[in-house]
Amino acid sequence: MGKKFTIGVDFGTQSGRAVLVEVGTGREVATAVKEYSHGVMDEYLPDGTTRLEHDWALQHPQDYLEVLAETIPAVLNESKVGAENVIGIGIDFTACTLLPVDAEGTPLCMYEEYKSNPHAYVKLWKHHAAQEEANKLNVIAQERGEEFLERYGGKISSEWLFPKIWQTLNEAPELYQRAAKFIEATDWVVMQLTGQEKRSSCAAGYKAIWSKQKGYPSNEFFKALDPRLENVVGDKLSRDIYPIGTKAGEVTEKAAQLTGLKPGTAVAVGNVDAHVSVPAVGIVDEGKMLMIMGTSTCHMVLGREERKVPGICGVVEDGIIPGFFGYEAGQCCVGDHFEWYINNGVPGSYYKEAEAKDISIHDLLSQKAKKLAVGESGLIALDWWNGNRSVLIDADLTGMIIGCTLLTKPEEIYRALIEATAYGTRMIIDTFEESGVPIKELYAAGGIAHKNPFLMQIYADVTNREIRISASSQTPALGSAMFGAVAAGKGRGGYDSIVDAAKEMARLKDIVYRPIPKNVEAYNKLYAEYKILHDYFGRGVNDVMKRLKVIKKQESKE
Amino acid sequence: MGKKFTIGVDFGTQSGRAVLVEVGTGREVATAVKEYSHGVMDEYLPDGTTRLEHDWALQHPQDYLEVLAETIPAVLNESKVGAENVIGIGIDFTACTLLPVDAEGTPLCMYEEYKSNPHAYVKLWKHHAAQEEANKLNVIAQERGEEFLERYGGKISSEWLFPKIWQTLNEAPELYQRAAKFIEATDWVVMQLTGQEKRSSCAAGYKAIWSKQKGYPSNEFFKALDPRLENVVGDKLSRDIYPIGTKAGEVTEKAAQLTGLKPGTAVAVGNVDAHVSVPAVGIVDEGKMLMIMGTSTCHMVLGREERKVPGICGVVEDGIIPGFFGYEAGQCCVGDHFEWYINNGVPGSYYKEAEAKDISIHDLLSQKAKKLAVGESGLIALDWWNGNRSVLIDADLTGMIIGCTLLTKPEEIYRALIEATAYGTRMIIDTFEESGVPIKELYAAGGIAHKNPFLMQIYADVTNREIRISASSQTPALGSAMFGAVAAGKGRGGYDSIVDAAKEMARLKDIVYRPIPKNVEAYNKLYAEYKILHDYFGRGVNDVMKRLKVIKKQESKE
Repeated sequence: MGKKFTIGVDFGTQSGRAVLVEVGTGREVATAVKEYSHGVMDEYLPDGTTRLEHDWALQHPQDYLEVLAETIPAVLNESKVGAENVIGIGIDFTACTLLPVDAEGTPLCMYEEYKSNPHAYVKLWKHHAAQEEANKLNVIAQERGEEFLERYGGKISSEWLFPKIWQTLNEAPELYQRAAKFIEATDWVVMQLTGQEKRSSCAAGYKAIWSKQKGYPSNEFFKALDPRLENVVGDKLSRDIYPIGTKAGEVTEKAAQLTGLKPGTAVAVGNVDAHVSVPAVGIVDEGKMLMIMGTSTCHMVLGREERKVPGICGVVEDGIIPGFFGYEAGQCCVGDHFEWYINNGVPGSYYKEAEAKDISIHDLLSQKAKKLAVGESGLIALDWWNGNRSVLIDADLTGMIIGCTLLTKPEEIYRALIEATAYGTRMIIDTFEESGVPIKELYAAGGIAHKNPFLMQIYADVTNREIRISASSQTPALGSAMFGAVAAGKGRGGYDSIVDAAKEMARLKDIVYRPIPKNVEAYNKLYAEYKILHDYFGRGVNDVMKRLKVIKKQESKE
Repeated sequence: MGKKFTIGVDFGTQSGRAVLVEVGTGREVATAVKEYSHGVMDEYLPDGTTRLEHDWALQHPQDYLEVLAETIPAVLNESKVGAENVIGIGIDFTACTLLPVDAEGTPLCMYEEYKSNPHAYVKLWKHHAAQEEANKLNVIAQERGEEFLERYGGKISSEWLFPKIWQTLNEAPELYQRAAKFIEATDWVVMQLTGQEKRSSCAAGYKAIWSKQKGYPSNEFFKALDPRLENVVGDKLSRDIYPIGTKAGEVTEKAAQLTGLKPGTAVAVGNVDAHVSVPAVGIVDEGKMLMIMGTSTCHMVLGREERKVPGICGVVEDGIIPGFFGYEAGQCCVGDHFEWYINNGVPGSYYKEAEAKDISIHDLLSQKAKKLAVGESGLIALDWWNGNRSVLIDADLTGMIIGCTLLTKPEEIYRALIEATAYGTRMIIDTFEESGVPIKELYAAGGIAHKNPFLMQIYADVTNREIRISASSQTPALGSAMFGAVAAGKGRGGYDSIVDAAKEMARLKDIVYRPIPKNVEAYNKLYAEYKILHDYFGRGVNDVMKRLKVIKKQESKE
């Protein structure tokens, strides 16, 4: 039997990417990327005249089909791998990225009559126009003492499924009526490949308040939100949810024509980008946290038991790896901090120096900041430039820096911002551990993990934990490919479980960032100070940040 | 009788400046500046080989004589005013700027044998190498419950007279022995003009722990510091102190030859630069505060009674205007804040924009910041980049800024730093008023007061008080000239009191910054937040700033 291959397709915010991977080794043989033709629509619909309101963010499902149609043939072609040797395909998506479809699964935006209705399109994860609905939902859930709240750190995000559906009902009731279903894009793409609807436990669990044991919230709850929503689950969703790692079906004739894959190729149940990355770095047991580090950071960790962890984004049984409770936490603003700083706080002389040395401004600042001893800057920052996701879940918190003197240098501030995000991560880790979810080692993926060793060492020192780095620069696609091989099963040359797949296919870089004891000790002292400030400003002792936002709103000129 | 004139000479840190002023109008007829030949010596003595330690700052008294010899003839010459029409001269100085002299008043550094002894020179106000002596003095004074402490906000500065003398005794005991006297430079220059020692109540009161009613601290106190200091006052100083506004004497034949003035010209008792500015803006009664605004700010206010005001720099009877208690407070870092910011926090694109518009970076930032409504930035800063002088008297406090978001712009930070210094001023004003020293109006002098109307309006709005601006760009010299006219007296064409002189000669700009009610209201809300943060970080609730400084010291690489 010759070599077998599997394909993962990762649907991001701006583009989709296919990776063809060798089963057994995890070697990434070929990659192809397709930018979405419509990009992110946040100003106009494709008609060019229908204007979108503030906080909207839409996508066009046609773009997803284009990704399938272009990238899969491209990786087959580039790799010279015959489609008969591709045993499976897995896909992952941003979420909650949600669209209304008719009974046949056709997106409503494909119909001429709905082309100018914004609610007919895909609401992207970062569509924030359902905040009002989210606020109401949280108030009512709290009043009713809904038990599900504690699985989501006490708050449902406006980015998630029910606020988005409710917004559609409020603003376009006729379209709500017309929709046979609302479906996550990850599940919709799987449907395009297999011809059947098999919804993912990951998307449902993290975004649709679904749990394996308790199902969705009750009809009474939805009725309390809005009488028209009473039967929203039965009418517009599905209770037919499949755990991650399940085979959703096989590539249909139609899908084979679209992609160049063979009919019958196994297709995995859809997944979510952050979550699918966990087995791609080899995490298939408790005690290990994956940090996906980009503009923001997602923290994924597995536990053998369901624990109440205050301030996390969610805990979902079978949400990441079957048989485990998958926990997710997050920091709103990591890379974004540093981008804000280089754009708004770094003097021109530093840019000139970076240019003269032919290095990036980040590299220059890192080089200078690296020369400082831990604590030498005398600075501490609170990493809340974009609010706090975990463990405070408070978008109205803001950034702070303390310890400035007339001798404070830009590289010291840069380092303080990095350290602040590391303290934020430690706060999340400590909260997990205090709640009974052990975290012994860290793993990192994403742009920052690959590009900034200076930062990674600070994270190792602040958290006092070893950090391993994903070898793949397209970790989610690798994870999806692994799930594709699991969908194929051992009999077809794949695996019987994602645990088996991870053993052979997960890949890490050789480098391990190990805590330096002297730094750990110094950071323990600094973290103690961070914690005092974190609780003082973040837990209601002094709500100055919120009051300043209120004053800002009252006084701002229009 | 023709027009009469008076001369003020202001001895600054880098240069001396003479101004010839018309009596009766305050019109400044001529000005001359002389840079000190030796500048500020902080690395080497004039021999070019004797190295000075860190924190030293010396001057050479020969430079003061050069100022007299060059600038006075220059203003006479430029104005075409005959020396017979100059009725008086006043001088003011930085303080405590102290030198050791022999029995004849000759500075010890003029002797060949002491030329290489740093302690033989003038210790400039900002000589900070006597910190250890100051610390010991404060501990002992507190242990003994010395009543004088509360006249100086609870702490004696290392910049003042006794720490400087004590340092000389500790490090150069033979030179201490040899010195017949230690004398303030302001008193020494008056001595050069008049041939007699008549010490100033201003310098003695603010810098030498002297008070009109209680005199100096007791010999027991000095003995407790160091047995060798027991008789320091009797041996090395003088108890013969004269109130501001007194005639010290007349120009001698020798001084007439040096300066071109007529022998017999009246000479006022020496003064200190900040204090002498008060009557120059017309303040001769309680209720009005003068802010001298430059890199740092001095706040001067008169009171009819002696009040205990926590955290001020000093209160001295007859220290500013005879018959009043003169109060001084201060902020360590005002212009320095903004300089730090433009050098360390403003991106290159802003510099390019300023260049394209052919305006300074401060003007660009002010223009942009001016467009913001009060509170719109959502930011609050604590103005402690260089510690806090009043009302916390704590050099170990550091700067903080809170309310940052990913949308925070440089002009918002710039404005927040300006506002922070205005809040600091309001804190000082409130403390005075709460202690029974009324402050109804503000006056401002110094570079910032002249150059930054945007900032001045913020101060008016934050303090809810009208602000008037000194018309003179050399306010201290004008004030000294007024005291020269008082020394001459009415009989010689001058005035019988500084109050009379101020009525005719003090000069203000036409502009008055008036509080804008809408802004006052918004700033009241923001100031309430500043106050909470001020007390939390500044009054020991959370000493994180100090702990960060300790960690910084422990961890810093050498």
